[in-house]
Amino acid sequence: MSHYKMVVQYDGTRYLGWQKLGEAGSGEWNKTIQGKLESILSKMTGQTVMVDGSGRTDAGVHARGQTASFTAETELSEEEIRDYLNRYLPEDIAVTSVEQAPERFHARKDATAKTYSYTILNDTVPDPFRERFEYRVAEKLDVSKMREAASYLIGTHDFRNFCSSKRMKKSTVRTIYEIRIEEEGKRLTLSFRANGFLYNMVRILTGTLIEVGKGERTPESLSELFDTQSREAAVYTVPGKGLVLESVEYE
Amino acid sequence: MSHYKMVVQYDGTRYLGWQKLGEAGSGEWNKTIQGKLESILSKMTGQTVMVDGSGRTDAGVHARGQTASFTAETELSEEEIRDYLNRYLPEDIAVTSVEQAPERFHARKDATAKTYSYTILNDTVPDPFRERFEYRVAEKLDVSKMREAASYLIGTHDFRNFCSSKRMKKSTVRTIYEIRIEEEGKRLTLSFRANGFLYNMVRILTGTLIEVGKGERTPESLSELFDTQSREAAVYTVPGKGLVLESVEYE
Repeated sequence: MSHYKMVVQYDGTRYLGWQKLGEAGSGEWNKTIQGKLESILSKMTGQTVMVDGSGRTDAGVHARGQTASFTAETELSEEEIRDYLNRYLPEDIAVTSVEQAPERFHARKDATAKTYSYTILNDTVPDPFRERFEYRVAEKLDVSKMREAASYLIGTHDFRNFCSSKRMKKSTVRTIYEIRIEEEGKRLTLSFRANGFLYNMVRILTGTLIEVGKGERTPESLSELFDTQSREAAVYTVPGKGLVLESVEYE
Repeated sequence: MSHYKMVVQYDGTRYLGWQKLGEAGSGEWNKTIQGKLESILSKMTGQTVMVDGSGRTDAGVHARGQTASFTAETELSEEEIRDYLNRYLPEDIAVTSVEQAPERFHARKDATAKTYSYTILNDTVPDPFRERFEYRVAEKLDVSKMREAASYLIGTHDFRNFCSSKRMKKSTVRTIYEIRIEEEGKRLTLSFRANGFLYNMVRILTGTLIEVGKGERTPESLSELFDTQSREAAVYTVPGKGLVLESVEYE
């Protein structure tokens, strides 16, 4: 038996998300990325292969660098496994690399940092070519105010108020290492690098920064959201389609 | 009554092509770009509005600068017409501009040149983010040979052998002003600017250049294809999904 690490890209538009649902081979199962990968690897090896991802991505969310691990018995080389997967995967999922990994490697437990990006088209006219991968805001955004607001989010904070699950038993403290806001024409790409993210956290952080960009909220007001006794919570969750899991880091 | 020129962008993946089919409002009609635009403009004005495009694009073919003309009676400004259309159009079609035009302006008859692009991903691994807009060729292409071959195509020639319709009664002579082949990473974009194109001509020209890039055909052999007495014809027609109508020129 060998253990592998693989990197997966997908356009999540047609899928219910990363995590497998329903019974193996069912319609629901086949609308998940994990389900698709497990089906093909199981067919390839004649064994039941389980794939562990670095984390779930929601319905409609994309990935350029989702990382996953699995164990399988096969005589195929790393490159042959990759090519086999790409031959049977639908065109909106691709495996960019497969490599052998130490037996103890686990894509989720060993991840030390993740980067997500969120793309906003700040224009009155949509772009049909990028529509699946960006969220359009017609009202002109003040990018310098958004950058100022982002600076309040950097560091170690309790992000409970930036999470849509209200029954968090585990710690809601996370460390954001970096937030970059890049402008290219009428497009804004926000990148968030952190040691981990709570449920919907990137989409809520982005929504809150958009509120700042529109002038509906001051940059300083973001620090108040860390007061977990406050009744106020960030609530503007932007749609999943603008969100991409860019990369996962390991030691 | 006022006369208008508009520029339309679309991701053609879901459509049967530009040209309307079937009865107004039918399922087929709604799977064409022209049908969609006519339905919305007719609803906007309460009149039957006809839209003339610069030319048809086939099923699955995209446009960044399709140009169309129409006549309508409305009190809305140019910008308001554009915004009305974008509000009711599906997200894979967008109108980027609407402007008043001289009464005699006709989007097809007055076009003096058109530019199409064709994108090839020259890689063993697909890119799920661009998959709808490019055609993948795994075998490494010799780009300098393709550029050399393209030079034989420039100018005024009888392109009968680069057309998939064999019952052409009209002239099959066209003038290609420019062919550019741009490399960006593992992506090749071929741009063709000409006074007009025959049916499937860009897709056949691209297929022929790919044959050269693979070494299956020499650059010089392209000039032989202009011999209309020859039985040999270019036959490799690449899929529509890599093709984009980039722009239409008028005097």
